[in-house]
Amino acid sequence: MLAEIITIGDEILIGQIVDTNSAWMATELNKIGLRVKQISSVSDDREHILKALAEAAGRVNIIFITGGLGPTKDDITKKTLAEYFGVGLVENKETLDNVERIFARYNRPLLEVNKLQALVPENCEVIINHNGTAPGMWFNHEGIIYISMPGVPFEMMYMMEEGVLPKIKSTLKLPSIIHKTLLTVGEGESFLAERIADIENDLPPYIKLAYLPKPGQVRLRLSAFGTDEALLKQGVDEFAGRIIERLGSIFVIDQDIALEKAILNKMEARELTLSVAESCTGGYLSHLITQHAGSSSVFFGGGIVYSYELKEHILGVKNETLTKYGAVSEQTVKEMVEGALLNFKSDFAIAITGIAGPDGGTDDKPVGTVWIAVAGKGKMLIKKYTFGNKRRQNIERSAATALSMLNTLLT
Amino acid sequence: MLAEIITIGDEILIGQIVDTNSAWMATELNKIGLRVKQISSVSDDREHILKALAEAAGRVNIIFITGGLGPTKDDITKKTLAEYFGVGLVENKETLDNVERIFARYNRPLLEVNKLQALVPENCEVIINHNGTAPGMWFNHEGIIYISMPGVPFEMMYMMEEGVLPKIKSTLKLPSIIHKTLLTVGEGESFLAERIADIENDLPPYIKLAYLPKPGQVRLRLSAFGTDEALLKQGVDEFAGRIIERLGSIFVIDQDIALEKAILNKMEARELTLSVAESCTGGYLSHLITQHAGSSSVFFGGGIVYSYELKEHILGVKNETLTKYGAVSEQTVKEMVEGALLNFKSDFAIAITGIAGPDGGTDDKPVGTVWIAVAGKGKMLIKKYTFGNKRRQNIERSAATALSMLNTLLT
Repeated sequence: MLAEIITIGDEILIGQIVDTNSAWMATELNKIGLRVKQISSVSDDREHILKALAEAAGRVNIIFITGGLGPTKDDITKKTLAEYFGVGLVENKETLDNVERIFARYNRPLLEVNKLQALVPENCEVIINHNGTAPGMWFNHEGIIYISMPGVPFEMMYMMEEGVLPKIKSTLKLPSIIHKTLLTVGEGESFLAERIADIENDLPPYIKLAYLPKPGQVRLRLSAFGTDEALLKQGVDEFAGRIIERLGSIFVIDQDIALEKAILNKMEARELTLSVAESCTGGYLSHLITQHAGSSSVFFGGGIVYSYELKEHILGVKNETLTKYGAVSEQTVKEMVEGALLNFKSDFAIAITGIAGPDGGTDDKPVGTVWIAVAGKGKMLIKKYTFGNKRRQNIERSAATALSMLNTLLT
Repeated sequence: MLAEIITIGDEILIGQIVDTNSAWMATELNKIGLRVKQISSVSDDREHILKALAEAAGRVNIIFITGGLGPTKDDITKKTLAEYFGVGLVENKETLDNVERIFARYNRPLLEVNKLQALVPENCEVIINHNGTAPGMWFNHEGIIYISMPGVPFEMMYMMEEGVLPKIKSTLKLPSIIHKTLLTVGEGESFLAERIADIENDLPPYIKLAYLPKPGQVRLRLSAFGTDEALLKQGVDEFAGRIIERLGSIFVIDQDIALEKAILNKMEARELTLSVAESCTGGYLSHLITQHAGSSSVFFGGGIVYSYELKEHILGVKNETLTKYGAVSEQTVKEMVEGALLNFKSDFAIAITGIAGPDGGTDDKPVGTVWIAVAGKGKMLIKKYTFGNKRRQNIERSAATALSMLNTLLT
């Protein structure tokens, strides 16, 4: 069963936004056994959209369309779909109710242009958008399924998770797929591959192994495709077990969850609490943690201590330490983590200080120099890292590495 | 003059990597006046590649192909291109020298498989890859230009900048494109559209207007296409001016930069400083600010005060206020912002407290209830918002709204 993703909108074609939707959708579709044959980004142009739909219909069984559903004039996906299917637009009561509900919630007057959001091609089945006014639409046309969704990432994601994926699974007969993801930290992709090369060679043809690297961490995903679900599961479990045994301490968890979530779960089960002192990561580590529901049962918060003054005021770092050794030093990061434990009264704390760049580097402390400390329950780890010269990458790697160190301290 | 980008490789189609190459290329091509008509991601499959090339040749004048040029068996772009053009492969001396040079530089033995990198379709003009072994290839075939490049981002980028873009500019007569982006905050897409409907109707055919919404903000992008650059610029400036005048206070800046970056620039120019007190946004607001290079000249940092204790300890919020009115209340957010100003000694401060969800809501304070305060220089704005029930969305909208309130206070 093959799928195509068509994204509609000039913003991708002029490079204004990076198309992250398609990668997310492709991952989710793969999980349920739908293989993506092509991803096409086309402009908000009637003829171009019609052609892209026709071409995709010649290639695949199911077509996912995102974008071009806003209330403004440049959004023409809906009327172009109606033209493609040769049908008219009709008002959908459920969608109108949804639009009215959303406007009422925000106490905004409902404009005529918003009511037009409730018009849909008459051959479609509406998928309600609980997070926006543009409805999702499901079409069955000459043996091919077309699904149109908004391009706003969170609207599309919730719609996929709540409406589209369950409907696909109940509508189509898809092969069985069993995935198992092993989260590892602190070792690069090629080193990992070398460590488990013999196990990988032993994999039967129905099991595939993918390496999914992120800064500081690599996910190993075992995927088995076939018809006998019990057999697939048995095969995947066996190989997962062999890999986990081989990996030792760099293995974190056999679930496809984020590293910080795995740590939060572990700490919550052991009734441990956490606080942070962030300098160069500037809130990114806290954001990673607090994006997860329920994080407040473990996470107290902490200080974002960009300036010297805040390092002193919030954490009690000594002015003498800062002037003598500098903000990016072993002495400062140690006082930061100790200050966090003392002032925030959590069981564990993380402190990060470094030079994210692009400016601020010196000969002995170049851009990418980062000191990280994790401490708690009488134990402490302090390490210096030299990452690259890209600000964003330095922030992300610092946060991932700090989490990885905390994971080590907890193990 | 129209272009298409074809990316070849399964890693994009299974969602393993996000296609950032295409956005970068599209931006660069737009700058020199080449409009990207379509971006297609296809698999490492002979038939599929041949079809994608033929379809693109029917649509555009110039086709950029990335990926599938590695030395391993699954990389088939080169021989498929030779088949598409109906030519054979020949060894290219310059490429072989380059491959040998690279292997010598890293002291690696040159394998037979690496020498194969020097084989190219006989109708191509080679573009040397100074950062890798796979050559770039330029084809002129039946009036259409085909350019094949490696998929490794930095190899592709250097090749584009050093070889491809200069060659395109000297080979093709390109039209001019002028873009201008207007950043607005605090008003939804449809309201904006209604406010400027008459101006939009007046737009000449050579100027397009696009609405690019994000949580709490909308970008309006005017794009003019034509030959007379001065005329295009004049037209875009005139309409930008009319729109800016109409929008009044919701207009932030006529540059394509992030809202927080626009505020940082404004504050830096006026030598103002900022600190934050984040509860429900949990570091996200600080992360938005500190992802920008140079933010430390404005931003001191602040407190992530998830727990009652940290609200008291870091900000000096009174325990009595928290127990009497609750952490999500006007009284608490007021003490938070005052505490930030007092303790962190910045000119301005932002405080946010709310219920991000999915749990923690009550009848009178449902999930999505957020209090935001911004204060400084004797002025203060405090407002209560009721966002939705999605955690991630509540975090993003709270941060964007807080920035929007700060922008108002600064204006």
